[in-house]
Amino acid sequence: MVSETKIEEIRKIAALIRYYILFMTTEAGSGHPTSSLSATELMACLLFGGIFRFDVDHPKCPNNDRLIFSKGHASPLFYALWAAAGELTEKDILTYRKFGSPLEGHPTVAFPYVEAATGSLGQGLSIGLGMALNAKLLDKLPYRTYVLLGDSEMAEGSQWESMEIASHYKLNNLIGVLDVNRLGQRGETMYGWDLEAYEKRVSSFGWKTRTFDGHSIPEILAAYEEAVRATDQPVMLIGKTIKGKGVSFIENKNGWHGRALKREEYNRALKELGEIDKSVRGEVSLPEDLKPKEQVAGGPVKKLDYPADKPVATRKAYGNALARIFQQFPNLVSLDGEVSNSTYAEIFKEAFPERFFEMYIAEQNMVGAALGLSRRGKIPFVSTFGAFLSRAFDQVRLSQYSDANIKFVGSHAGVSIGEDGPSQMALEDIAMFRAILGSVVLYPSDAVSTERLVEEAARHDGIVFIRTTRMETPILYGPEEKFAIGGSKTLRKSEKDRATVIGAGVTLHEALAAYEALKKEGVFIRVIDLYSIKPIDEATLRQAAGATRTIITVEDHYPEGGMGEAVRSGLSNSPVPIHSLAVRKKPKSGKPGELLDYEEISRVAIIKKVKEVV
Amino acid sequence: MVSETKIEEIRKIAALIRYYILFMTTEAGSGHPTSSLSATELMACLLFGGIFRFDVDHPKCPNNDRLIFSKGHASPLFYALWAAAGELTEKDILTYRKFGSPLEGHPTVAFPYVEAATGSLGQGLSIGLGMALNAKLLDKLPYRTYVLLGDSEMAEGSQWESMEIASHYKLNNLIGVLDVNRLGQRGETMYGWDLEAYEKRVSSFGWKTRTFDGHSIPEILAAYEEAVRATDQPVMLIGKTIKGKGVSFIENKNGWHGRALKREEYNRALKELGEIDKSVRGEVSLPEDLKPKEQVAGGPVKKLDYPADKPVATRKAYGNALARIFQQFPNLVSLDGEVSNSTYAEIFKEAFPERFFEMYIAEQNMVGAALGLSRRGKIPFVSTFGAFLSRAFDQVRLSQYSDANIKFVGSHAGVSIGEDGPSQMALEDIAMFRAILGSVVLYPSDAVSTERLVEEAARHDGIVFIRTTRMETPILYGPEEKFAIGGSKTLRKSEKDRATVIGAGVTLHEALAAYEALKKEGVFIRVIDLYSIKPIDEATLRQAAGATRTIITVEDHYPEGGMGEAVRSGLSNSPVPIHSLAVRKKPKSGKPGELLDYEEISRVAIIKKVKEVV
Repeated sequence: MVSETKIEEIRKIAALIRYYILFMTTEAGSGHPTSSLSATELMACLLFGGIFRFDVDHPKCPNNDRLIFSKGHASPLFYALWAAAGELTEKDILTYRKFGSPLEGHPTVAFPYVEAATGSLGQGLSIGLGMALNAKLLDKLPYRTYVLLGDSEMAEGSQWESMEIASHYKLNNLIGVLDVNRLGQRGETMYGWDLEAYEKRVSSFGWKTRTFDGHSIPEILAAYEEAVRATDQPVMLIGKTIKGKGVSFIENKNGWHGRALKREEYNRALKELGEIDKSVRGEVSLPEDLKPKEQVAGGPVKKLDYPADKPVATRKAYGNALARIFQQFPNLVSLDGEVSNSTYAEIFKEAFPERFFEMYIAEQNMVGAALGLSRRGKIPFVSTFGAFLSRAFDQVRLSQYSDANIKFVGSHAGVSIGEDGPSQMALEDIAMFRAILGSVVLYPSDAVSTERLVEEAARHDGIVFIRTTRMETPILYGPEEKFAIGGSKTLRKSEKDRATVIGAGVTLHEALAAYEALKKEGVFIRVIDLYSIKPIDEATLRQAAGATRTIITVEDHYPEGGMGEAVRSGLSNSPVPIHSLAVRKKPKSGKPGELLDYEEISRVAIIKKVKEVV
Repeated sequence: MVSETKIEEIRKIAALIRYYILFMTTEAGSGHPTSSLSATELMACLLFGGIFRFDVDHPKCPNNDRLIFSKGHASPLFYALWAAAGELTEKDILTYRKFGSPLEGHPTVAFPYVEAATGSLGQGLSIGLGMALNAKLLDKLPYRTYVLLGDSEMAEGSQWESMEIASHYKLNNLIGVLDVNRLGQRGETMYGWDLEAYEKRVSSFGWKTRTFDGHSIPEILAAYEEAVRATDQPVMLIGKTIKGKGVSFIENKNGWHGRALKREEYNRALKELGEIDKSVRGEVSLPEDLKPKEQVAGGPVKKLDYPADKPVATRKAYGNALARIFQQFPNLVSLDGEVSNSTYAEIFKEAFPERFFEMYIAEQNMVGAALGLSRRGKIPFVSTFGAFLSRAFDQVRLSQYSDANIKFVGSHAGVSIGEDGPSQMALEDIAMFRAILGSVVLYPSDAVSTERLVEEAARHDGIVFIRTTRMETPILYGPEEKFAIGGSKTLRKSEKDRATVIGAGVTLHEALAAYEALKKEGVFIRVIDLYSIKPIDEATLRQAAGATRTIITVEDHYPEGGMGEAVRSGLSNSPVPIHSLAVRKKPKSGKPGELLDYEEISRVAIIKKVKEVV
């Protein structure tokens, strides 16, 4: 039973929060006040009702509860909460949406209390799932993860991926708070205020549910009290709310989404709010001072063992690498989308099953969960077919704004996968990952370089994409060879080189075969393994361009945004002509060799192009 | 009550189908026989049990029922069905997975009975939804759309988007057939053979459900009989099946996914199948000979009305254009992701409400549905924020392999959207859409060119992406100006041009402002509106390069895969230096002008760059 004192306290804090929401959005002239007002009691009760356990002086404390605003446009509410907790002043709040302020229009990690950037709807539950997995199965800490959800965004399929996976993993430490305010951006949602419609669906996915009046402080507190007692199910608290609650002329009205009040409207609203006690502050309970058991790097690292005469698929080397380097990177985890026997993440899974997470055929949730894990200090390696990483492009896109440390590994690159045909072929993945700000894009051509680059990726702080090949390819390098992000390897070089051929993956091996054939005819080419497409080894490329006077790039990828364009940008304003071989015809089923020839990226095509241009 | 004769007939056809499945995959040495064997009775009953209505001689007949294999890897079953219907010979089947054969590893539209290419899981239900929407609300024909689904792929969130939207639109003409064979690619699915787990979830989403033995012909036929009587709900038929059914040593065994039988195993399997009557053929019922009411283009096309002195946002011009051109393109439909008041699809919605489909915040399903509509002869214009189109990149990717005729319209391009911040900013969209084979990428800079290019897009057969801007921008062109895909406009030109500045969208206007400022200092630049980024106007670019000796590209987009790289590829091997201004720093909230300056893509930055390089 909640005391009247407590209820009154929270009521006053809620009033202050409403004031802040209106104040900051009116000042900024933009923002989403009505979406923030509807969830005010839901969040005030959470933070200041003794539920949430968070050391406000130490936002990164490992046993803090976590709060994610999946409905990221309610950022005014988020900042107002922390102001009510005493962490922001009214002067800080004045900077909302202003250039350079950490209080951005949608939450980003510029503001220290933001767990991860949100704003593209339907992503918060995945991120929370990652953090909950971390608590339950990795750090083994009792912190809970709360995710504020909007009703409109429940249409996003990614939410249902999160729901089924959270239920499957019995994440009772994941609590969704659903703000059912009935109105989407341009009218009513599909279910309006029919809370049972949500409850029916969510509970069918194995979640514990509870519905209540989303503005009744006693009802909300009771709901949270029940939620924290869940033992083996995640919990969805479903509150009926009013969009714009607290300001009568914007309550429950269409046309007020994403619309700040004008000065005159704001003054009217303030009158309605009445006297605001601006001195009131809310107390947030402290968490238990617990830390995760420290993972100690240790044990000797196994040596590479790739006999020079035995071809190995780079996708297999990936799996070997993960298992091999884990001792050095004890924060490493592996996530895979039900294809671990194809990506070879299964090798890691068999060696360290407690560090492997089957994420099923649900790539969006897999990437969101990886972001959550990354934000809690883990190094997630996320694997599936390169083509299927495109399923999660929006999640990858958002992770750019969260200082994410995620390694994406896409297997089955290009037409060279053969008979399965184009639906399984990654032909746009280099373009997709190059376009991510600050990303690293690696494309190793043999098992040794794959292993070394997986190590480099684990060592690197940021988003990395590694492209692996389906077929076995020959070993090119000895175990002592070093590979750096931003480097390249020149595999064939002479004073008589008439052109430089740049390849990666299967096309590098095609280039080496072309080299042999051309050599027989007395024509010499330089061959470069461009294992680091981004950042690119500009110095080596310029040197090769200067020396050989013609560049030919060859990639098992569509032309746009791929290796060829990366080389053109890297060789910016070099006068040397660049010719790009790439996949230019609609691919189809066929043997790998047939397809490489058909797409004119095979040794035959390289030889032909060399002869044409020298 | 089904006659014994009928049951025996279907049993014999199923045996023949099993023979074909094993035959073609063993011959090809690859494929997914076990996944095909589990659904054999489910499909044999559908096609040959008097349920499916399809004119096998006329696959494109508008009132044919439609069959989509969402579990595209069961392609052997798909082809075997049509062989059993008499449309393929054993000689044809021998070509399975061979280069040049229409019988590809996963279905593509090279085979005339394939409605749309599948193979990336979780997409078939969306495509079917589009076809069902078409039947019910556009063509107003009684055909039904059947979608064969795998159990593993029900983890994909996109399926749940389809389910909620199909239920919302009361698509009783959409029937899912769920093949619950328990085994995914590398082990058991989350729910195994727990049919109730699926039934509970699916029915909570408003679908009618029925469970049964997926190998019992009478039970399956009874299920279909019930399904076709649905009046206002879509239907999910949930069959318990055995992966590899029919061949004892591969039935219900892990490790047999995507694995063809070896010759010895095949011979053993044939012994188990026993005597196969290879002469048996199945009859498919004919549909009613109905056609959609013909849409007649007609009525005078309204003239453009953009006074030269009144800036208009290109996103608004988009909405105007759709409404204006509908009379010319009566097959046009508009789909939007709950942001029609932002994308301005609402203008079309208000004019032609029966041609507009609210698809809610579920972009994956929206794109799949658009593909379905496109395959049924409609011209879908799919709109949302450019950033959120990345949510459906895998669906866009697959549509490449279906001869899709879809127009994607992404609003809120770049940092210039301002205060909402990076989660809402499209900065990778040009790269994403350029990477799609055969795509057209358009980026109009004013209302007039937007209107004309929307027309061109509607006229063009294929995938088009149009990028629109949030802010109002000045009118640049008169109503008589013509715009062609692959064209460009040179807006400022003189004999004294010291550089060519190429822009689009907001950066074009920045370039024009830079022109004015530089002119005052006696420095002249050529300014090109590159409204067609792909295909690119190579001839004009080469001419400008030759005349002005320096190119500067400026785009509100990340550098990789964007306009700058498109120009570099287009100007391949031109000796003229190319300098690219693009978004290179992590974006943040702020006023549009502040952000353009911060990212060095504003008039100030252009002026600075011009002075630096000339």
